[in-house]
Amino acid sequence: MSGPQTPEPALRIQGDAPTGARDEDAADGIQHSHRMLSFSDALLSIIATVMILPVTHTEISPEQFDKSIQKLLATRIAVYLMTFLIVTVAWAAHTRLFQVVGKIDDTLALLNLACMMTITFLPFTFSLMVTFPEVPLGIFLFCMCVITIGAVQALIVVYAFHFPHLLNPQIESSAHRALYRQHILGIVLRGPALCFVAAGFSLFFYPLSYLLMAMVIFLPYVSKVSSWCKGRLVGPQEPPAHSMEFFTFDLHEPLSKERVEAFSDGVYAIVATLLILDICEDNVPDPRDVKEKFHGSLVAALSVYGPHFLAYFGSFATVGLLWFAHHSLFLHIRKATQSMGLLNTLSLAFVGGLPLAYQQTSAFARQPHDELESVRISCAIIFLASIFQFAIWTTALLHEGETLQPSARFGGREHAFMFAKLALYPCASLLAFASTCFLSRFSTAIFHLMQIAVPFAFLLLRLLVRLGLALLCAMRGLTQPATQAEEDAHAPLLPAAC
Amino acid sequence: MSGPQTPEPALRIQGDAPTGARDEDAADGIQHSHRMLSFSDALLSIIATVMILPVTHTEISPEQFDKSIQKLLATRIAVYLMTFLIVTVAWAAHTRLFQVVGKIDDTLALLNLACMMTITFLPFTFSLMVTFPEVPLGIFLFCMCVITIGAVQALIVVYAFHFPHLLNPQIESSAHRALYRQHILGIVLRGPALCFVAAGFSLFFYPLSYLLMAMVIFLPYVSKVSSWCKGRLVGPQEPPAHSMEFFTFDLHEPLSKERVEAFSDGVYAIVATLLILDICEDNVPDPRDVKEKFHGSLVAALSVYGPHFLAYFGSFATVGLLWFAHHSLFLHIRKATQSMGLLNTLSLAFVGGLPLAYQQTSAFARQPHDELESVRISCAIIFLASIFQFAIWTTALLHEGETLQPSARFGGREHAFMFAKLALYPCASLLAFASTCFLSRFSTAIFHLMQIAVPFAFLLLRLLVRLGLALLCAMRGLTQPATQAEEDAHAPLLPAAC
Repeated sequence: MSGPQTPEPALRIQGDAPTGARDEDAADGIQHSHRMLSFSDALLSIIATVMILPVTHTEISPEQFDKSIQKLLATRIAVYLMTFLIVTVAWAAHTRLFQVVGKIDDTLALLNLACMMTITFLPFTFSLMVTFPEVPLGIFLFCMCVITIGAVQALIVVYAFHFPHLLNPQIESSAHRALYRQHILGIVLRGPALCFVAAGFSLFFYPLSYLLMAMVIFLPYVSKVSSWCKGRLVGPQEPPAHSMEFFTFDLHEPLSKERVEAFSDGVYAIVATLLILDICEDNVPDPRDVKEKFHGSLVAALSVYGPHFLAYFGSFATVGLLWFAHHSLFLHIRKATQSMGLLNTLSLAFVGGLPLAYQQTSAFARQPHDELESVRISCAIIFLASIFQFAIWTTALLHEGETLQPSARFGGREHAFMFAKLALYPCASLLAFASTCFLSRFSTAIFHLMQIAVPFAFLLLRLLVRLGLALLCAMRGLTQPATQAEEDAHAPLLPAAC
Repeated sequence: MSGPQTPEPALRIQGDAPTGARDEDAADGIQHSHRMLSFSDALLSIIATVMILPVTHTEISPEQFDKSIQKLLATRIAVYLMTFLIVTVAWAAHTRLFQVVGKIDDTLALLNLACMMTITFLPFTFSLMVTFPEVPLGIFLFCMCVITIGAVQALIVVYAFHFPHLLNPQIESSAHRALYRQHILGIVLRGPALCFVAAGFSLFFYPLSYLLMAMVIFLPYVSKVSSWCKGRLVGPQEPPAHSMEFFTFDLHEPLSKERVEAFSDGVYAIVATLLILDICEDNVPDPRDVKEKFHGSLVAALSVYGPHFLAYFGSFATVGLLWFAHHSLFLHIRKATQSMGLLNTLSLAFVGGLPLAYQQTSAFARQPHDELESVRISCAIIFLASIFQFAIWTTALLHEGETLQPSARFGGREHAFMFAKLALYPCASLLAFASTCFLSRFSTAIFHLMQIAVPFAFLLLRLLVRLGLALLCAMRGLTQPATQAEEDAHAPLLPAAC
C-alpha cells in the first residue's frame, strides 16, 4: 500500500483515551468533548431540518390551489433552504471552534448549551423576517441572535485560552498562542460584527441590513466555491493562512470527519422519523368517526390512510438507503475537504426535502392531474440528493491520495461497487422521471415501484457488479488473447483494467 | 489507584482501529458497526419519544376541561409511557444483538434498516390498540410488527453465524459457536413466539392476547428488578448463564456504555428540540391577523406569544442541564449495570415528559386556578426525571469498585461535586413544589424563577461546594485541634474526612 503522507487530522478527540488518563482529567473537572459534540451535532441537525415542517404542513386542498398558495409554498421552501444553510454555517463555525478547543470543563459545557439554545432560535427569527419583510423587527431579532452566538463563542475562546490545558495540544504548546487567540477571535466575531452593523441599520434603513446579512450567510459558501474553482484552475496551492509562517496549526484545516458524519446522521435520522411523527399523531382514526362513517369497521377506516402508509414505507426506505450510501461512502473517505463538506451540505439539504416528497405523493394520491407534477418533484428531490453524494465521491477521486482509502481509489477493489452504489439512486430517479413522461397515467405506480425495487437492487448489488464486470471482461476477451482474459478473471476486480 | 479487576467490556467497536486495518476490512465489504449503531440509536430514541406529541397537542380549552378530556389525556400519557418502555425493550434487544455481532457488511446494514423501519411502526400500532381496545386488529398488527422484528433479527443472527468473521472475536474463536447460535436465537425469538400465540388468540379471544403481550413487554423489566432485589438481599451471585461452563462470552453482560450514552443523547436532543418544532411552526403570526387585530404592530402580536417563549427558554434550559448532569454522571461511570440501565430508562421516560410540562405552563398561563396544578405537575416531572439520575449514581456507589471511576467514589475528589450536581434539580423542584403550597398565587413566577436560577447554580457549583466544605471543616475545626484542621484544608476535598 502506498501510504499517504498527509497527517491524520491531529484532533482525535476521545474514546480511545485509556481509562486511567481519562479519569485523571475528570478529577480536575476536565472532560473529553466527544459526547458534548455529538449532542450538539444532534441538536443542530434537528434545527437545520425543522423548517421543512411548515412546508409539509401547508394545507393545499386542490380547489384552492391558486397563486397565493403557490407563493406561500415557494416562500416556505426558500425559508427551509436558507435556514438549512444558516444552521450549517453555525455548525461549521462550532466545529472549527471545538477543533481549537480540544477539551472541556463544566463551564465550557454550560456555555456550549447557551450557544445551542441561541442557535435554536435562528429558524424562528428567520421565518419571522421572511413573513414580515418590511418590519425591521425580524431582522433585528435575527441579528441579535447571531450577535449572542458570537459573544458566547468569543467567551468560550477567551475562557479556553485563559486555561490553556483545554486547548488543542498543538496550540497549547505553540509559542504564538496570543496571536492564535487574536486570529480565532477575529474569525468568531467577523459575522456578529457585520450583524451588529445590520441591526443598527435595521432601525432606520433596513434594505442595507438585508444586504449585510446576506453577506454573513453566503460569504463562507462563496469563498469556499471560489477557492475550489481557483484550486481547479490554478492547481492546488498553499492555503493563505500558511503565509504566517509561525502557525503550526492550520485554522483552515478540513472539518473533522467524525463531526461531518454525526451531523449527517442526525439529519438522516430526523428526516426518516419526521414522517412517523406525523403518522403517529394524525393517522389514528377517531373512535367516533369510525362508528359513524365506517359503521365500526376499523379496517375500512385504516384503508383510507393506505396511501399514507405506502408513501411512508417508500420514503423511509429512500432515506434509509441514502443514509446507507452515505455511510458506505464515508467509510472509504479518510478526510473531508471543504468542497466535499459543501457538497455534503447540499446533499443533506435535499434529503431534508424528502418529507415534502412524501407529503406530495400521499396528499395528491387521488388527483390525477397534480399527481404527475408531485411525482416529478419527488423524483427531482431524490435525484438531487443522490447526485450530490455522487459528486462528493467524484470530488474525492480528484485528490484520491489524500481523501480516499486505497481500496476505493480509481481501479481499487471497491471502486466498481462504490460507483454502482452511488449511481443507483440518480439512475433510478432519472428513469422514473423519464418514464412519467411516456406513461403519465401510471406515474404514482412507477414511483412506488422504484422505491420498492431499489432496496433489492442494493442487496443484489455485489452480485450485479460482479456479473457486469465478468460480462465486460468476457466481451473484451473475445478481442484479446485468451490468456490475458484468464489473468483478468483471477485478478481482483479492476474495472479500469477490464 | 486500586485498579479494578473487572475486564473492560471486550467490545470496543470502532474509531480506535488504525486506518490500515480498517481499510483492509472495508475492502472485503466488512465494516465496523459504530456509525450504524449511532444512527440506530438516534432513530430509536426519536421513536421512543414520539408519542409525547399527541399528549402535548391535546387541545384543552379551559371551558371544556371535563372528565372526557381528562380521560383522553390520561390515556395518551399511558400510551406514551408504554411506548417508551416498548421501544426501550427493542433497543436493549438491538444492543445485545450487536454486542454479539461485532462487525457488519452491506447485507447486515440493510437488514438493520429493515428492522428499524418495522420498529418505527410499533408506536402507531400500539396507539391503535389503545384507541380501539375491543377491536382485535390493533393487537394483531402490533404482534405482526414484533414478529417481523424478531424474524429480521433472527436473520441477522443466522447470517452473522454463517460468516463468523462478522461475530464478536470472543464468540468467533469459541469452540461452541453452534451452541451460542442456538442460545442467541432463543433469546431473539422468545418475544416474537409469544406474540405469535397472542396474534392467534387476538382473532377469537383477545383478552388473553393482551395478557401475553404484557408478558413480552414487562418480562425484561420484571426479571431485571427481581434479579436486582435478589442481588441486594442475597448478595451478588454468579449470573445463571455461567452455569453453562463452556460459554466464554457472557450473554447477560451489561449494556455497552457507549450505546446507553448515544440513546440518552438522542432522547435529550429530540426533547429539547420538540419545543422549537412547535414554536417554528405555529408561532409565526399570520400577516393578515397582524394587520387586523394588532393594527400592524408585530411587537404586539409577538407579545401574545411571550409566555411561550419564556416557557421554551425554561424548558430548554431544564433539558439541557439534565443532559449536563447525565453527561457528568456517565463521565465517572466505567460500566453500566442492568439496574443502572433500568433507572436510566425511567429517568429518560420522565425527561420525555418535559414537553408536557412546557405545554402546561405555557397553555395555562392565564388561568390562575389551573396554573397551580400545572406548575405542580411540571415540578413533579422534573423531580422524577432528576431523582432517577440521582438513583443511578447511588446504585453505582453500591458497587463502586466495578462501576465508578476512582475520583467519583465515596470520599473521592469529585464525590462532593457529583453529589451536589445531581442533588440540585431534585432539591430545586421539591422547593418549588413546596413553595407553591404556601405562595400559590405566585406559583408560575416561582417556577420560572427556579428554571432561570438553576443554570447559575450549576455555574457556581464548584465554588459553592468548596465554600460549603470549607465551612464544614471550619465548624469541625472549632472542636478539633487546630493542626488537624490545617491539614484538612490542604488535603484534597474529602467530604468523608471533613
